[in-house]
Amino acid sequence: MRAVDLIRKKRDGGQLSPDEIRWLIDSYTSGETGDDQMAAFAMAVFFQGMNQQETPALVQAMMASGDVIDLSSVPGLKVDKHSTGGVGDKVSICLAPLVAACGVPVPMISGRGLGHTGGTLDKLGAIPGFSVDMDADGFVAAVRNHGIALIGQTGRLVPADKRLYALRDVTSTVESIPLIAASIMSKKLAEGIDALVLDVKTGSGAFMKKREDARKLAETLIGIGEGMGRKVRALITDMNQVLGQAVGNANETWEAIEVLKGGGPQDLVDLTVEIGAEMLVLGQVADSLDDGRKRMQGAINDGSGFEKMKICVAHQGGDPESIEARDRLPTAAHTTDVTFDKAGYVSVIDTEAVGRAGMVLGAGRARSSDVIDPAVGISFMPRLGDKVAAGDLLAHVDYNHEHKLETAQEILRGAITLSEQAPKASPLILERLGGE
Amino acid sequence: MRAVDLIRKKRDGGQLSPDEIRWLIDSYTSGETGDDQMAAFAMAVFFQGMNQQETPALVQAMMASGDVIDLSSVPGLKVDKHSTGGVGDKVSICLAPLVAACGVPVPMISGRGLGHTGGTLDKLGAIPGFSVDMDADGFVAAVRNHGIALIGQTGRLVPADKRLYALRDVTSTVESIPLIAASIMSKKLAEGIDALVLDVKTGSGAFMKKREDARKLAETLIGIGEGMGRKVRALITDMNQVLGQAVGNANETWEAIEVLKGGGPQDLVDLTVEIGAEMLVLGQVADSLDDGRKRMQGAINDGSGFEKMKICVAHQGGDPESIEARDRLPTAAHTTDVTFDKAGYVSVIDTEAVGRAGMVLGAGRARSSDVIDPAVGISFMPRLGDKVAAGDLLAHVDYNHEHKLETAQEILRGAITLSEQAPKASPLILERLGGE
Repeated sequence: MRAVDLIRKKRDGGQLSPDEIRWLIDSYTSGETGDDQMAAFAMAVFFQGMNQQETPALVQAMMASGDVIDLSSVPGLKVDKHSTGGVGDKVSICLAPLVAACGVPVPMISGRGLGHTGGTLDKLGAIPGFSVDMDADGFVAAVRNHGIALIGQTGRLVPADKRLYALRDVTSTVESIPLIAASIMSKKLAEGIDALVLDVKTGSGAFMKKREDARKLAETLIGIGEGMGRKVRALITDMNQVLGQAVGNANETWEAIEVLKGGGPQDLVDLTVEIGAEMLVLGQVADSLDDGRKRMQGAINDGSGFEKMKICVAHQGGDPESIEARDRLPTAAHTTDVTFDKAGYVSVIDTEAVGRAGMVLGAGRARSSDVIDPAVGISFMPRLGDKVAAGDLLAHVDYNHEHKLETAQEILRGAITLSEQAPKASPLILERLGGE
Repeated sequence: MRAVDLIRKKRDGGQLSPDEIRWLIDSYTSGETGDDQMAAFAMAVFFQGMNQQETPALVQAMMASGDVIDLSSVPGLKVDKHSTGGVGDKVSICLAPLVAACGVPVPMISGRGLGHTGGTLDKLGAIPGFSVDMDADGFVAAVRNHGIALIGQTGRLVPADKRLYALRDVTSTVESIPLIAASIMSKKLAEGIDALVLDVKTGSGAFMKKREDARKLAETLIGIGEGMGRKVRALITDMNQVLGQAVGNANETWEAIEVLKGGGPQDLVDLTVEIGAEMLVLGQVADSLDDGRKRMQGAINDGSGFEKMKICVAHQGGDPESIEARDRLPTAAHTTDVTFDKAGYVSVIDTEAVGRAGMVLGAGRARSSDVIDPAVGISFMPRLGDKVAAGDLLAHVDYNHEHKLETAQEILRGAITLSEQAPKASPLILERLGGE
């Protein structure tokens, strides 16, 4: 086989066989096929797509490019969650300990942020001493002993995706459903999970701006997972506004901790409970979604979720006292307020822009080599439908460098459209897919 | 500017500005933009095309990536010819000395062959001692003193094309009209010519199988050249059968020499005279195409074209006696005949397959690192419409390695379709484009 022929076949709209896809991914992993040929292939896939035979074959080939973790020694059904990424999405940090406290083991391998969305690893990095590096044996032991592990992708897990993900980022081949699906599912299936809940976000702060694209991605992901014998559920959720208020790293982690303590913004609590309920049903700990919701709420009320997080932090080298008080997490040197300069109803929020404002402050990465400042961030106040007056608070901005502040403020002000009439309300959870 | 943004713009159907195109080519030439990003860009261009502003900007950016030869010190209008490549296309070798003998300077920079088509440089390489390496000063001097120079691309001429051409070859991004046009025209315009005649081939042995694609390419090339102040004419010519009989290197060079001596196959003579007539008109030596044809025929009849070739060979280090007799050019160790095994009219020739048979014997390259055997080749006999009987000669095959022979014979036999009725005849010159 030759890569040039497989590129041509895909370019001309042909269907690649599983053997051809495996050969391509193997030869890319070994270095025989270079980034130049893979970039051309990825762009051909962007234009021609992949069908229901090709995409699962790509997932399997990528998964098989490295180690696959064996969690069979851990009793119970292991359930993970994946979000396609949004602004202010810190759900994993409160969700995982709550679900684990309810008795479902959560083996969670997360990523770093790029562009306008943050990454769970970066947010966890705000906890002093907390390490997300663990080898496979340590990961299995943590899940077995504590029911929870929050780590980053090890070097031996899906190396093909590591390389392809970085390549797609610089070659404008990110927005392709088969490539997104293969990246997500190869990593999640390599974790050794039995079931998965997907939070597929749509709206102004999501990668999938259109609901039908989000649905198509969700259906693709469910099809792949079910085809490989895993139970997969998906929620399509609204990302037309920030989830919660905090956009950053230390502040987002703290907001998630507040949920564990019975506080936190209502939308964040609601989404955490909904996703958790799905995970408890898949993990066969809850009989129904309603039972699952009650158990999740119970783990908030009795503090068992918070206790589980303390155990996780301690086990992963972090200071468990650091999640007791906000001032033990990194704090920026300066803070300032941004206010509305006129009145009206908040009718549209360019949520991606809010994420970008955070990135400009240093909370995110424009390129993968950028270094995160965990202390800086935004508390973003407006909710869609709010009636605001001139002088009302739009955002608190925590910053360390004056010269970045102005750009961030400008972006924040430009992110909001006011109107004379209240917009139609939209629910947080738009759709459920998968299962019976 | 960032390459990733320009790739995205093209991917999404946007138009790149001349500045953006120049930046991309400059950063590719300097190495800042890598082959991975350029491969993705080339594939995006394959799908989205380039418009009449973008393609000339790409030509200029590529031309400006290296040296541009200044032929203003040579009196008269300098005219070159370019063929898009076919099987048995040795026209340049007889054309250039005939045109030069008629008084129009021909500064010709040619390429090597890849795939089923041969390259003029490889064919000239069959002449013992003949060197196609010359620096810009030597090139200018040769054109000034002898009216002719037949050389290869120097390292400092259009480096962006050198790299991009090799990249397109391995990433299945060859068949894109703007990329083909940019590759051809950047090199031709860097030669310092005043006018250009294009031989755009279409049919089973050409890159452009369809006549409308050939016309579109011709129109694009003319538009670019005229836009940069050069006179450009194009002939669209038939490549549904081999041009002449010889397919190889020494044998093709010899067939072209025979034309200079007043012999050679009629189609090769006709095409050489037609293209030469266009060049003489553009060079303002002939008043009309008819006058041009007469002058070309005159340069054949009086031997002045042949004498010019001897001067060129001598000047470029070759043995001028070697073009006097066939046995002074490389000769293969063995020869064998392939015959028809049934009767009928020759109705279709897979001309690309004939080229591939030559490549298998060693006359061409499957990949750019392959080494050419100048002695091997094919004399291909059938013409479309010929009535043949079982046992009639299909081809002479000159070979050096027994193990390659069988494959070549099989390809040759499979290249011909016989039918019970004679096919409709098609002219060699299908269309003329450009000019008034």
